[in-house]
Amino acid sequence: MSDSTKPFRIGIAGLGTVGCGVVKVFQRNTDVITTRSSRDIEIISVIAANKNQERGVDLSKYEWASSLSDMAQDKRLDAVVEMIGGSDGQAKDFIIEAIKNGKHIVTANKALLAHHGFELSKLAEDNNVSITYEAAVAGGIPIIKTLREGLAANKITTVYGILNGTCNYILSKMRETERSFDDVLKEAQEKGFAEADPSFDVDGIDAAHKLVLLGALAFGVKPDFKSLEIEGISHVTMRDIKHADDLGYRIKLIGMVQRDGDSVVQTMAPCFVPKNGAMGSVEGAYNAVMTQGDFSDETFIVGQGAGEEPTASSVVADIIDLAKGNYLPTFGVKVKELDKVEWQGTETLNCQCYIHLHVKDVPGVIADITACLKDKNVSIDSFIQKGHEEDGTASVAIITHSTHFKKVQNAINSVRELSSVLDKPTLMRIEDI
Amino acid sequence: MSDSTKPFRIGIAGLGTVGCGVVKVFQRNTDVITTRSSRDIEIISVIAANKNQERGVDLSKYEWASSLSDMAQDKRLDAVVEMIGGSDGQAKDFIIEAIKNGKHIVTANKALLAHHGFELSKLAEDNNVSITYEAAVAGGIPIIKTLREGLAANKITTVYGILNGTCNYILSKMRETERSFDDVLKEAQEKGFAEADPSFDVDGIDAAHKLVLLGALAFGVKPDFKSLEIEGISHVTMRDIKHADDLGYRIKLIGMVQRDGDSVVQTMAPCFVPKNGAMGSVEGAYNAVMTQGDFSDETFIVGQGAGEEPTASSVVADIIDLAKGNYLPTFGVKVKELDKVEWQGTETLNCQCYIHLHVKDVPGVIADITACLKDKNVSIDSFIQKGHEEDGTASVAIITHSTHFKKVQNAINSVRELSSVLDKPTLMRIEDI
Repeated sequence: MSDSTKPFRIGIAGLGTVGCGVVKVFQRNTDVITTRSSRDIEIISVIAANKNQERGVDLSKYEWASSLSDMAQDKRLDAVVEMIGGSDGQAKDFIIEAIKNGKHIVTANKALLAHHGFELSKLAEDNNVSITYEAAVAGGIPIIKTLREGLAANKITTVYGILNGTCNYILSKMRETERSFDDVLKEAQEKGFAEADPSFDVDGIDAAHKLVLLGALAFGVKPDFKSLEIEGISHVTMRDIKHADDLGYRIKLIGMVQRDGDSVVQTMAPCFVPKNGAMGSVEGAYNAVMTQGDFSDETFIVGQGAGEEPTASSVVADIIDLAKGNYLPTFGVKVKELDKVEWQGTETLNCQCYIHLHVKDVPGVIADITACLKDKNVSIDSFIQKGHEEDGTASVAIITHSTHFKKVQNAINSVRELSSVLDKPTLMRIEDI
Repeated sequence: MSDSTKPFRIGIAGLGTVGCGVVKVFQRNTDVITTRSSRDIEIISVIAANKNQERGVDLSKYEWASSLSDMAQDKRLDAVVEMIGGSDGQAKDFIIEAIKNGKHIVTANKALLAHHGFELSKLAEDNNVSITYEAAVAGGIPIIKTLREGLAANKITTVYGILNGTCNYILSKMRETERSFDDVLKEAQEKGFAEADPSFDVDGIDAAHKLVLLGALAFGVKPDFKSLEIEGISHVTMRDIKHADDLGYRIKLIGMVQRDGDSVVQTMAPCFVPKNGAMGSVEGAYNAVMTQGDFSDETFIVGQGAGEEPTASSVVADIIDLAKGNYLPTFGVKVKELDKVEWQGTETLNCQCYIHLHVKDVPGVIADITACLKDKNVSIDSFIQKGHEEDGTASVAIITHSTHFKKVQNAINSVRELSSVLDKPTLMRIEDI
């Protein structure tokens, strides 16, 4: 219930898919946006690299800003919507200039915030403005609001997420169609579900940027991208997916950030999850986030992880919040209150693991492998070897009991040195979510 | 980022499970609550019917208010937390007096708001205070915030919910253990999962109160309890549950509120949902809400639907919001902006249906039944009759194609009149969610 009767005025920088989506939301839902904001919200100006491109949306009512810098300095604007993208360069310069000119920031730029979120949050606080970024994580899912406000009474212990729709689509499609990663990726690119250069998605970087923001918010800490261990999905084989299925699991690219006292572990990696569990049921381009709070217990949210309309829905929710005067610190608490934690590596985790080995089908190989595991104190829950290949090799899948991940990593290092073990072993955590 | 440096002061009226849970959240999580609120929040006073009862929580630091009225008038308090319960009487009088004395209201009282929410929202607006009720719907799930703020950019078309943990527990347990409703209910009562008088839960009233609030928020309309058709779960039989399973479904008590133009339909009834779908996977005491927005598409949230700690988590989230100055109209928009809609009955819905008939196993019975359906223009998707009982009767399950619910209701009325049809036929909607 902001008392302001003046319109809330914004400028939009960047008119790609999401930028245009934002314009469409305002044009189509003016009525609900106005009543929910209790005031008018006006798009004053827009700007993008190419003015004359056909975008399928009517921009004629808005001024075309003469430069990013002009928009950042425009005294009429209460907030700017940064839809330029990129962790540095234009987007960063524009945001800094806009903050210094007293404008609130609405952005979907996870890369920028994952790398420079702390500095920007300080700058925003010094200038009494807010940085909002609901659209930066999990598209249309209001997970930032859920963590920053809805679960604010809780000490969060863990956040899990399926945070990249392209990876989840590829893994789902591989399983359904029994085709290879490369094959499914190619089809996804042809259909426009994956970028021409897919590395940002399939190497886990995009999901990692999002996870870092969730961790910072959940625990009220500085985002720390460099301490995050990241593994993508390009090495996941149809054989792993079939083993998972046989054992009651699915493979998902799972981000996890977990706090125990002052220790925090962040990881982004393909994991086994129960096929009938919450995360295992999330298929295709959907995203999902599960939080564990000390009072709320588990909260699980699923929704569209990307796309023009869901992402624009989140951008506009942020704008409405700002118009209503709901200004919040970037990471949920003021900069001076950000907590100090020790970032730990994944070796400190306790979990069950999946191991896949490609071995020569010779006498004694199983004995050698199990001896390596025993030697490192890793005990075996399940062991599958189904026959052998024509080339005299065999595929071995092992599920360990829950143990220190470090021990399993050590055991794998020993196993690798066995002359009967071909290729690099596959190791994935099993998360019971 | 409220600028207020004064503590935010509250009184808590009602010290049952949730009221004591709220005190525990403040005692255990003072640090995160203070930093996220950017100010101290102080419990000044408490009150309950019995002062001397042992509650397992230390109340010695708080004043014991001399009466509800004294607390409502206490000039030191910024907000009162109403945990008394009941749709009328003390709770209502207390809230009205507190609002008139300029206090924000935090409540978990769905019955009160479902029946008197409109009048109270007007009173709150006139007195410049907020009524918050995150804990009133779906326990620890921040669904009020999600609808009121997270999805604020959207025109919501439908909200579905599993909103009563007791019902969902009973239906899950019946399926798992193949026991009758009465049997499982008795066990649930013994374990404390169901009340001694379970009618509020199993007749769907509690869930209906919650659904009415979700509908009011989703569409920005007056809550309208009387237009809601409510059917409980006490008539659901093991046979229905088995038929559902055979056909790929589970039975859940599903609340649905759906808007099409100016028409809104509200219903609370046991429905068939796909067993591998989002709602079908929600088992035990969990609650779940699915929203469909024009931009956000589907958003699905699952979490603890009740219990001291999850519900208290939601109460305290509201208090933090108020402490930060995030004041919102009760139903998302100001009273004068509430939309006018036409409340329609379920007969206007289009859906597939499940019909169960208990019939005499005599020649021509199937022909008679199918003729009734044909006569009312209801076409059959699946038809199951597996043998017959020793008493010369048989059980027939029918799944219709998607059609007007009214047509199926009419067909059922004709079928009932057949002399070969014993007992009252069972009719449930099938919702593909």
